[in-house]
Amino acid sequence: MTTASARRAVTPVRVQAIEDGHLVERPDRLVTEEPMEIRLQDRREQAEPIAVTMRTPGHDFELAVGFCRTEGLLSDADDLAEVRYCVDPGADQEYNVVTVTSRRPVDLDAHRRVVAASSSCGICGKTTLDEVALQCAAVAAGPVIARSTLLRLPDVLRESQAIFDSTGGLHAAGLFSPDGELEVLREDVGRHNAVDKLVGHGVMTGRVPFPSSVLMVSGRLSFEIVQKAAVAGIAVIGAVSAPSSLAVATAERFGQTLVGFLRDGRGNVYTHPERIAMER
Amino acid sequence: MTTASARRAVTPVRVQAIEDGHLVERPDRLVTEEPMEIRLQDRREQAEPIAVTMRTPGHDFELAVGFCRTEGLLSDADDLAEVRYCVDPGADQEYNVVTVTSRRPVDLDAHRRVVAASSSCGICGKTTLDEVALQCAAVAAGPVIARSTLLRLPDVLRESQAIFDSTGGLHAAGLFSPDGELEVLREDVGRHNAVDKLVGHGVMTGRVPFPSSVLMVSGRLSFEIVQKAAVAGIAVIGAVSAPSSLAVATAERFGQTLVGFLRDGRGNVYTHPERIAMER
Repeated sequence: MTTASARRAVTPVRVQAIEDGHLVERPDRLVTEEPMEIRLQDRREQAEPIAVTMRTPGHDFELAVGFCRTEGLLSDADDLAEVRYCVDPGADQEYNVVTVTSRRPVDLDAHRRVVAASSSCGICGKTTLDEVALQCAAVAAGPVIARSTLLRLPDVLRESQAIFDSTGGLHAAGLFSPDGELEVLREDVGRHNAVDKLVGHGVMTGRVPFPSSVLMVSGRLSFEIVQKAAVAGIAVIGAVSAPSSLAVATAERFGQTLVGFLRDGRGNVYTHPERIAMER
Repeated sequence: MTTASARRAVTPVRVQAIEDGHLVERPDRLVTEEPMEIRLQDRREQAEPIAVTMRTPGHDFELAVGFCRTEGLLSDADDLAEVRYCVDPGADQEYNVVTVTSRRPVDLDAHRRVVAASSSCGICGKTTLDEVALQCAAVAAGPVIARSTLLRLPDVLRESQAIFDSTGGLHAAGLFSPDGELEVLREDVGRHNAVDKLVGHGVMTGRVPFPSSVLMVSGRLSFEIVQKAAVAGIAVIGAVSAPSSLAVATAERFGQTLVGFLRDGRGNVYTHPERIAMER
């Protein structure tokens, strides 16, 4: 994170603190939340808006590329021709529109049909799960991680996050090597955005699918996070807090190891414990 | 929450707990996350899908009605003709499709145009804020709440939530009277859903806009929550954790009192402190 984007990621405000029956004015810092529009184009077409996400500024190109990847609109680094901010002449430019250009033809009509189809039937969740299955197979064998290494990840994530998180409002997602080294850390007001930024980083550096990385997130685990990890080929996922029922069902389906409540030297393994080495 | 829906709101699983170098199998409970499709129709038209949301089962009708209200598709209780589950013959029925019928003609094409417009320009956030402004004016003068009452709300919310939350995965939203009495509590894996359930409850009981209620949420405060509260006319919002920059800007714009980090007898007032009575 550059100094400039780190500065934009927090917004200074004045706050009235309630203290001993008085309101005391003091400075405070808020996590910045701003809309960002993602546009996609190939070489034949005009850029077309595909999403607006509420995000924390910083690593915007990674977020745009990661979103396109986890939505199945980009396959790998070879597809990626260019990522740029849209600079409209005369606009009060705040760098909130990012355009991704694909080398391959993009069938945006097909994408719209998929979006329309996935919202035409939600009965019993099978449609949603089947949509994911179209985009990715089960993950590969993936890494084996030692129990003691796994239990250390939340502290490493928290200590690394503490540099930037002075606001109490940021979710963190970190990519670790199997021996517990932090490879990339991304933060965002939206937990799905933090994961998309990691995936985008991987696409832009030619590392997706991630063959042997462990994903660790600061909060809870929903279906959406596990789905994005599956598309990026991530086989081991840890979370500080609780997973949902559909997060666990999805991890089971794609062969991912899911560990929740990973804190204070403990954790609950919900799926595929064979990737955890229980050394004494 | 009925016994049946309370049972569906949690999903029992077996988990491998990491303990002292061993994996110990034991029972655990997860918060249930399932897709729910919301359909809307008026008396002339076929029901049309307007959204699929990942939610925790329970108070599904309130969620559907509240979502339609905060999206500006229903005005008040008089508009509401019927809410029902879609029961498809032959389908493995799990009650995940809810149809809302409006007495008034619904211009779904206009709604689609608004959705399309709001995703066609995200520059500097003005479009998004303007979209909200179309749906609601500034909130009314609203209640005045005593400092000591305000500081008590998080504990009341937590104690009331503890009945259902055995999973660690549920967000809570509570509606309180100005003298600190809990009126309605709703929980969901998605924090926006918990607020939509409250709003839907208000529409179905003829209480929206809420003239004098205080909204208290268990987690962080994003733009989306403040926007939904503004549409429902809620003038005072408290949160246990941090607000985002856009949450504070939105509350300022609509004249709402926003208090964050409300816990341990403290709180930060970000906007409109005049609704808090600082008795000694």
